[in-house]
Amino acid sequence: MRTIEVSLGSRSYPVHIAPGLLDQSGPLVREHLGEAAVAVVTDDRVGPIYLERVLASLRGSGLRAVSVTLPHGEKTKCLEQAAELYRFFAEHHITRRDAVLALGGGVMGDLGGFAAATWLRGVRFVQLPTSLLAQVDSSVGGKVAVDLPEGKNLVGAFHQPSLVLCDPRALDTLPEEFWRDGLGEVAKYGAIRDENLFRLLEEAAPLGRQGLMVRMDEILGRCIACKADIVSRDELDTGERAILNFGHSLGHAVETCQRYSGLHHGEAVAAGMAAITRLSEKQGLTEPGTAARIEALLTALGLPARLPEIPADQLRAALRRDKKAEGDGLRVVLLERIGRCFTRLVQPETFFADLG
Amino acid sequence: MRTIEVSLGSRSYPVHIAPGLLDQSGPLVREHLGEAAVAVVTDDRVGPIYLERVLASLRGSGLRAVSVTLPHGEKTKCLEQAAELYRFFAEHHITRRDAVLALGGGVMGDLGGFAAATWLRGVRFVQLPTSLLAQVDSSVGGKVAVDLPEGKNLVGAFHQPSLVLCDPRALDTLPEEFWRDGLGEVAKYGAIRDENLFRLLEEAAPLGRQGLMVRMDEILGRCIACKADIVSRDELDTGERAILNFGHSLGHAVETCQRYSGLHHGEAVAAGMAAITRLSEKQGLTEPGTAARIEALLTALGLPARLPEIPADQLRAALRRDKKAEGDGLRVVLLERIGRCFTRLVQPETFFADLG
Repeated sequence: MRTIEVSLGSRSYPVHIAPGLLDQSGPLVREHLGEAAVAVVTDDRVGPIYLERVLASLRGSGLRAVSVTLPHGEKTKCLEQAAELYRFFAEHHITRRDAVLALGGGVMGDLGGFAAATWLRGVRFVQLPTSLLAQVDSSVGGKVAVDLPEGKNLVGAFHQPSLVLCDPRALDTLPEEFWRDGLGEVAKYGAIRDENLFRLLEEAAPLGRQGLMVRMDEILGRCIACKADIVSRDELDTGERAILNFGHSLGHAVETCQRYSGLHHGEAVAAGMAAITRLSEKQGLTEPGTAARIEALLTALGLPARLPEIPADQLRAALRRDKKAEGDGLRVVLLERIGRCFTRLVQPETFFADLG
Repeated sequence: MRTIEVSLGSRSYPVHIAPGLLDQSGPLVREHLGEAAVAVVTDDRVGPIYLERVLASLRGSGLRAVSVTLPHGEKTKCLEQAAELYRFFAEHHITRRDAVLALGGGVMGDLGGFAAATWLRGVRFVQLPTSLLAQVDSSVGGKVAVDLPEGKNLVGAFHQPSLVLCDPRALDTLPEEFWRDGLGEVAKYGAIRDENLFRLLEEAAPLGRQGLMVRMDEILGRCIACKADIVSRDELDTGERAILNFGHSLGHAVETCQRYSGLHHGEAVAAGMAAITRLSEKQGLTEPGTAARIEALLTALGLPARLPEIPADQLRAALRRDKKAEGDGLRVVLLERIGRCFTRLVQPETFFADLG
């Protein structure tokens, strides 16, 4: 079992990574949290596959475990479903000594985590992510939230989990589009911070999903180590954590222009990483050849390396409205080379002049 | 101007106390928070009296200020009204750099604070409490929450304000029942921790509301200093903060038995303080004469010193269900003498055998 510690003083916690952890959740939760009752929150896609095994493990360790299954999909990440969870917690007498366990992808982690953060002013929280995106990104770092009609993640909290259990075997049942979604974020970690991870991906990507799965323990370990390191130095996202947004400004602009019905998040971010690196390379800010390496890797991973056909002035308009815009500039993340990045305040009109 | 610092490391903040602070909110907010936009949250009782003055002060200091007025009363402290506030914040572009200001009593502070704690994962928060209870209790300490149909304060957070402005002149328009409500908590601080405050109240209470108002700066200062001291040592309510619950176990039991339609909270707590001190004095745990002093003060303040007519077995049943019950015991706060208290785990059946 690999274990990565997220160092946050009294809020520190371990991320365990190993095949088969789904069936070890009982002993591990008991070891880390003691005699707590556990409210398991899952959705109607993941629940039918994994819920019984998790409940059996928790109960086998002598813990009281109750579960609630919500509809899958981003629409579930809303205040109304948070209210459903509160009712469930009240009905099952979840107290300050108890815990919430999110079993599923990012939606379950974000929603379950938000409910845990606010129930009785905060109860403990365990993440058992079953999607690649949740394993390498959202389950570590304590960002929890729900969406509003006005925008994504507008209501939320920073609420660190007490324990994260990352089981690569859960990825065996992950639908192809969610697999690719996660690979976009995996490639991002290599690009911004870990050249060895980037090389590992370059080697394994041509072997397809099975080839990547053979190296998945190491891939997850490297991604989570990156995330843990960044989060431990910038818990509340006021500085360094911004580098995790590499590819995201353009990616979000694409998603906005497509009204969230075109590319998936991971695909949009992938196209965004390649596009912004082409721009920064042209402007002499990035080592020559970097964009080509990124494009080649993304293509090998089955991800888009080119922005979809959207008029450049629409994209620039979306970039100007980006929430990370400061006064008259936009802070973007650029690569110095593979494995090293920096942030820069740019003028969208000039920096993105050559778009598309 | 009296200033009491709540010492919580990077989350420290000042509580300013002075007549006329309502009209100084602009300069003070600007001094402490910088160029933030301010979303003022108030209710339809307090708003018509004070909102224009606060907005004028904020705008006079060059700050962008917007306001929303909600219905008054405990029913407003709910998730649906929090959602109303989120919509308002979105509509008025309240960003991470901006702030929420709660103008009103405990309901506005708790609801506005909860919305501030969760909007964009937490924005800054200013308390401008206009009731005595909010000034001496809920505006300091960071407990924010909304109620659910299943119970009070079930959903919430610890979110410390950045600034608290306490204007005793706001009490001039406080209806009599809310005034008495606050006096119960004021007497509590004297009883558990500040014999000088208790004596001051003994002197001033016979002079009535006007007599108390003459000494109100000092009374507020002493109460808030007690609260700030306790909160700074136990921010998350895992230990010492429990002493603030003196009188509350019996008080809550009374409120529950009366289904919240009998005594006001402060009145129920007052009767609870007197009753539990009579019991502990009889059992030799409290200096003789203490209960009589408490009863005399409460009576002089216009508060009940006797529990209402409720069958003792009903009260004991409610005490057994108290959320502070641990296993088979209940942790209660008792006085050693006026100004000194301690906590003890008791068996409700035996400790409260002589009730009523």
